[in-house]
Amino acid sequence: MGSFKGHALPGSFFFLVGLWWTGKYALLHATRRNKNLGSFRLASRATQRRLEVAESCVVILFSVVGILAEQFAANGPRLHLYDSVEKHWAFLMNWQHSTMYLFFGLAATVTVILHTTEGAPVAIDRLMLAVAFFNEGFLFLYHLHGRSALDVHVHQLLLYAIFGVAIVAALEVFQRGNIILELLRCCLTVVQGTWFWQIGFVLYPPGGADWDQKDVGNMMFITMCYSWHLAFSMLIVALLYSATSCGVRFRLKNPPPMEMGLLKPRGREAESEEEI
Amino acid sequence: MGSFKGHALPGSFFFLVGLWWTGKYALLHATRRNKNLGSFRLASRATQRRLEVAESCVVILFSVVGILAEQFAANGPRLHLYDSVEKHWAFLMNWQHSTMYLFFGLAATVTVILHTTEGAPVAIDRLMLAVAFFNEGFLFLYHLHGRSALDVHVHQLLLYAIFGVAIVAALEVFQRGNIILELLRCCLTVVQGTWFWQIGFVLYPPGGADWDQKDVGNMMFITMCYSWHLAFSMLIVALLYSATSCGVRFRLKNPPPMEMGLLKPRGREAESEEEI
Amino acid sequence: MGSFKGHALPGSFFFLVGLWWTGKYALLHATRRNKNLGSFRLASRATQRRLEVAESCVVILFSVVGILAEQFAANGPRLHLYDSVEKHWAFLMNWQHSTMYLFFGLAATVTVILHTTEGAPVAIDRLMLAVAFFNEGFLFLYHLHGRSALDVHVHQLLLYAIFGVAIVAALEVFQRGNIILELLRCCLTVVQGTWFWQIGFVLYPPGGADWDQKDVGNMMFITMCYSWHLAFSMLIVALLYSATSCGVRFRLKNPPPMEMGLLKPRGREAESEEEI
Amino acid sequence: MGSFKGHALPGSFFFLVGLWWTGKYALLHATRRNKNLGSFRLASRATQRRLEVAESCVVILFSVVGILAEQFAANGPRLHLYDSVEKHWAFLMNWQHSTMYLFFGLAATVTVILHTTEGAPVAIDRLMLAVAFFNEGFLFLYHLHGRSALDVHVHQLLLYAIFGVAIVAALEVFQRGNIILELLRCCLTVVQGTWFWQIGFVLYPPGGADWDQKDVGNMMFITMCYSWHLAFSMLIVALLYSATSCGVRFRLKNPPPMEMGLLKPRGREAESEEEI
Repeated sequence: MGSFKGHALPGSFFFLVGLWWTGKYALLHATRRNKNLGSFRLASRATQRRLEVAESCVVILFSVVGILAEQFAANGPRLHLYDSVEKHWAFLMNWQHSTMYLFFGLAATVTVILHTTEGAPVAIDRLMLAVAFFNEGFLFLYHLHGRSALDVHVHQLLLYAIFGVAIVAALEVFQRGNIILELLRCCLTVVQGTWFWQIGFVLYPPGGADWDQKDVGNMMFITMCYSWHLAFSMLIVALLYSATSCGVRFRLKNPPPMEMGLLKPRGREAESEEEI
Repeated sequence: MGSFKGHALPGSFFFLVGLWWTGKYALLHATRRNKNLGSFRLASRATQRRLEVAESCVVILFSVVGILAEQFAANGPRLHLYDSVEKHWAFLMNWQHSTMYLFFGLAATVTVILHTTEGAPVAIDRLMLAVAFFNEGFLFLYHLHGRSALDVHVHQLLLYAIFGVAIVAALEVFQRGNIILELLRCCLTVVQGTWFWQIGFVLYPPGGADWDQKDVGNMMFITMCYSWHLAFSMLIVALLYSATSCGVRFRLKNPPPMEMGLLKPRGREAESEEEI
Repeated sequence: MGSFKGHALPGSFFFLVGLWWTGKYALLHATRRNKNLGSFRLASRATQRRLEVAESCVVILFSVVGILAEQFAANGPRLHLYDSVEKHWAFLMNWQHSTMYLFFGLAATVTVILHTTEGAPVAIDRLMLAVAFFNEGFLFLYHLHGRSALDVHVHQLLLYAIFGVAIVAALEVFQRGNIILELLRCCLTVVQGTWFWQIGFVLYPPGGADWDQKDVGNMMFITMCYSWHLAFSMLIVALLYSATSCGVRFRLKNPPPMEMGLLKPRGREAESEEEI
Repeated sequence: MGSFKGHALPGSFFFLVGLWWTGKYALLHATRRNKNLGSFRLASRATQRRLEVAESCVVILFSVVGILAEQFAANGPRLHLYDSVEKHWAFLMNWQHSTMYLFFGLAATVTVILHTTEGAPVAIDRLMLAVAFFNEGFLFLYHLHGRSALDVHVHQLLLYAIFGVAIVAALEVFQRGNIILELLRCCLTVVQGTWFWQIGFVLYPPGGADWDQKDVGNMMFITMCYSWHLAFSMLIVALLYSATSCGVRFRLKNPPPMEMGLLKPRGREAESEEEI
């Protein structure tokens, strides 16, 4: 994966996940606040549950595709781990990436199970998310032996975002549904996504001219750049949150001409009972 | 900004902000405690909101002026960032300072929006404050490559105050209105202000004779000096808090001869309704 | 203890403790949830107390046996600590291991006292557990002077699990009975157990061929391996928890033909009174 | 203060403070639990307040005596700080110790003010205690430039106890009156006291023969020794707590023949009113 594409791909993924989460939480929060305006259908627990399950299924899909791609792509290990001829571990990078995907897949699988059965407390899904991000950060942390100064520095900055998400998700185990923590998590996920793109541009510049890996000026510029990514992601998340909130409020005040929901009152009653 | 004035300016700013916050919180806390004595006008939410908005507007103003001054002063970058002749980043210091101001400006802008609209939870203002201080500390942290020992040491001590404020502000997201956390934040902001002055005196002594940058005695003296700054700031904050509290209590027990408030009962009623 | 057996023994111990805790908490949680189905006997406080006392007695036994084995085994110190002939401390390893056992023994002793008398708050048992694990981690931390890189690395990874358990146990002082924290603790204890086995295999490979202690590939493989241990332990804990929960629910819905409990109603009443 | 006596003195002080706190909290907790047995006089708020004020006055006294002793003893600085002949800071050690005493004195002064007036929340006393210990740890942290390995190590171990007390005191700001945190604080204070003695014995052995400052064996023994101090202090605190609890309960069940309290019912009523 040591290539521009190898950084742009996860970058795009985390960027989209961050946006999706922002939209989801803005929607849930707005409908919860405007319950008296008749928005209970969107905010009902059954809908939320279906949303979570759908999201998790997509994550599982991506995770499985990612693992298969790492293992069976052109230069992949095809499940070989030890090169017994040269007596050393082979394809360690691919295996590490597979392990990261595995943990995200596990977290999504647990979320599906939690939201379809009733055996265990729901808050475990945030714990699994925290573990998945901690694991990603942990593997990145011991990933940097013997690289150049700038390379190490950009990856260290990435770790702030990764461990940030992990810590926020761990706090959410105790403060579930706190919109501030949720938005902070969205924000840091968007930063992680855009920063992956930045790493790609710095280490594998598509235009050609390589960056001087030891220049202190480059290090300081990159640090400042990270602040700009953070400001940009806060802006994006704030705009998306505001747009969604306004949209929900506008639609609730001006309901669509034919209220589809009225055609199936039974299902809705079942849901609102469940909600109690 | 590598000059005495460049440290005295932010120092004075943070010092005054610390004092202003102390006064504000002492006033709010004292009026909240003495509500039964008829002080509800000061403590009403509308007044608080106006206070927050006014404070934030001043911060936005300072932040914009700061950015413009950094960019367009005598030797400023005038929005140039990359020196394509010598192939290196130019004016990094000015850009870093602009970035710091930008984040304080952002925090203040968000505060204004939060207190004038009703779309999002108010506690986000403390989160933005925490992010602004974290960002300041983060940029300072990677600001010190290749400086002398004493220079690094005085800036590291500054980081304690900066990250201290950031952590306290982050705690306030969950414990909003806790007077102890608020006073601690005031205290650490005052320390940050006076310590900027101290840095100016140590690195750019106005009187002449430079400090020996490698003397262990100087390092140990500076460390102790930091403790004294802390004790001094606690004293200042305590005195200001006591004075304000006593002032409020005294004025409430001896109301002014003509009760101006009685002349406009309508506005007051509106406020007290809002308060409920 | 510098041998394969010396790592396999504590490994097996922690592995079994992790499984035992998982079963215990799954049982308690399942009976608490299904109280209305008539499971109050299992969940009564007296039963819980007996369980805790029994568990602690086993831990005390193991701890005493461990200390005696360290002291009086073939090459043990037999309570000698200072070699006054050669003027240095002798048998430091054995004494360090004895100290670790001592703290686990202390924690268990305190638990027995807390659950049989009523003088002090019960939550102290979690504090003592946290102290015992902190102490274990603390001694390991200063245990690694002058070892080879891989040796230090595998022990550092062990410290994550040890301090993880300590932190979770410390959080439980404030959030007693939180099933998520309890399962996290079980998980990390199982990781600690399996990782002790892994250390044994890496440092004292039973098959022969030693690992290259300085190869970066080995370091990265071991790091990834730690993730796999974590995933494996989460799987084990999840399966055991699910099996126990289902078992309890199944048995409560299909009670045994002869309800033994009905034969001694007095004891049960006493318990349910106590429960109030 | 670089002498055996210079470490034994603060050691004895912290040891006694730890014991005194244990006794105080055991007494308060026992009387609070046995309120229905008629012990309300001991647990009344006025008595507690008087206790706190008395304790703080003693601390202020010690702190003032300590500062005066440091400044005006045989080789003290007599308020001189800068040696303008040799152009370096003089008597830095004495000034650092004075600063430490100053912070403890400040904390005690604030406690007296808080418990005699009513202007500010009482929890500030714990914050000031936390600040005093943080300051002590902070000065010790930058106190160790250019010392030998063993010297640095024993002082680093001391820092665990100091910062431990500071963190626990900071937590008590939010969880005031939590007996577990209080006992943990007592425990760590006792460790700090006994460890000061240990440092005295290691660095200035009264018997003669100096310790080898670079021997790894010595380092590992000292680390283990720290665990033993912790175990010992937990034992002491537990015994003292149990003895006090039992004593209170025994005395309440067997009241003294002449109930002195009955002779002044007015004062008692005033107190119990205040308590409400």
